[in-house]
Amino acid sequence: MRNLKIILEYDGAAYGGWQSQKGGGTIQQTVESCLKEVTREEIRITAAGRTDAGVHAFHQVANFLVAKDIHIEQLRRAMNAILPPDIAIKSIEEVCPSFHARFDALSKIYLYRIMNRPIKGAIGRQYQWYLPRKLNMDAMEQALSFFPGTQDFSAFCGAGSLVRDRTRTVVDGGMKIHADGLIEIRIEADGFLRHMVRNIVGTLVEVGLGRIAASDIPAIIAGRDRRRAGKTAPACGLFLLEVRY
Amino acid sequence: MRNLKIILEYDGAAYGGWQSQKGGGTIQQTVESCLKEVTREEIRITAAGRTDAGVHAFHQVANFLVAKDIHIEQLRRAMNAILPPDIAIKSIEEVCPSFHARFDALSKIYLYRIMNRPIKGAIGRQYQWYLPRKLNMDAMEQALSFFPGTQDFSAFCGAGSLVRDRTRTVVDGGMKIHADGLIEIRIEADGFLRHMVRNIVGTLVEVGLGRIAASDIPAIIAGRDRRRAGKTAPACGLFLLEVRY
Repeated sequence: MRNLKIILEYDGAAYGGWQSQKGGGTIQQTVESCLKEVTREEIRITAAGRTDAGVHAFHQVANFLVAKDIHIEQLRRAMNAILPPDIAIKSIEEVCPSFHARFDALSKIYLYRIMNRPIKGAIGRQYQWYLPRKLNMDAMEQALSFFPGTQDFSAFCGAGSLVRDRTRTVVDGGMKIHADGLIEIRIEADGFLRHMVRNIVGTLVEVGLGRIAASDIPAIIAGRDRRRAGKTAPACGLFLLEVRY
Repeated sequence: MRNLKIILEYDGAAYGGWQSQKGGGTIQQTVESCLKEVTREEIRITAAGRTDAGVHAFHQVANFLVAKDIHIEQLRRAMNAILPPDIAIKSIEEVCPSFHARFDALSKIYLYRIMNRPIKGAIGRQYQWYLPRKLNMDAMEQALSFFPGTQDFSAFCGAGSLVRDRTRTVVDGGMKIHADGLIEIRIEADGFLRHMVRNIVGTLVEVGLGRIAASDIPAIIAGRDRRRAGKTAPACGLFLLEVRY
């Protein structure tokens, strides 16, 4: 058996996430049935980040074991020919048998895009959270600066998560403002809890709107109470941007 | 009656163009029924560029007459609240009674986006023509340089056009190549024939693929034979970018 590592880009709008608890079309199922069609093998694929329903990826990493001695570049082309246009295989390479896309990841970087301007747009609206009211970017940047570090992020963990240890290390957080009103927020961590990026972004937006003070963020984190943090930002603005090994 | 000038942005994917011969959902109908809902008047709206099915606009200009004494900013907000998310009203202003969005336009600028790289993408695929084979950009730029000027563009006029005078003035043509493989082609003219930008782009791509020599373009224009030019590029890559008055 060979262990193959693939990099995928996808538009998650039409999917119930990478892997669904409830069934329904998932990216994992779509890729697995494509692999079955190409290789005639029942292949199980493991991703670095199990993105939620509606979340996109510029760079998702996954791996799977395959018995068939198929040429890697031919496999990539065959998969891209079969997959729907909202999923693309960017590369495939053979890796050592022990490589595991999720367990071996040192960190993942997520990007969140907010469009903040009085006039709504139409083109590219699928890939951003539109907020007409002017956000206080200085306050948001100050708020974001409290997230890096090894902390218990229970206050930012979505309901229904079964994970008990909610301590994660946020390696870095940054914000970039573009002239057209696009705000890009990047968060790198060794692991993410359920809805963690969207809950952090929702909280940053509350700060930007003046409803939460930036200086309250350390207490909100320390309080470990989901109700004190902001709402969950919509899935459509979130992108898995990079996985580091 | 007041004459109002509006600027619209729209994602044309779901529409049969600005104005359809065959019926079906058009952008014009959608905006007119929105205006009726807000003003209770039967309003006819005129656009600067009657974009084809699937074509987008960052900046479409239109005008209409309204009897009701409605506050302009309230009208804009009401329209944006009613319109579907793929159509946005960017601004409304009152103009002199004689202003006509189409007849008064001095020129229009269209943008065409091609994604040219070996690896297909998934995010933003709705807004570009994906071409995996490497295009010869130097040849394409040379080919494009033959378009500016006042010429008979019959060779680039789509079938079924009833327009008899096919002389138009291309004011400018330019091409920009981005690091990720995105090619942006801009064409400014005093008027456009049916499918003219898409037929020019289709021809430029034939040049980029080595199937037509750049130096053949003047003869193709002069020949006024649609069959000698390239195919019509897909609608999804085309955007109305600006209207100049």
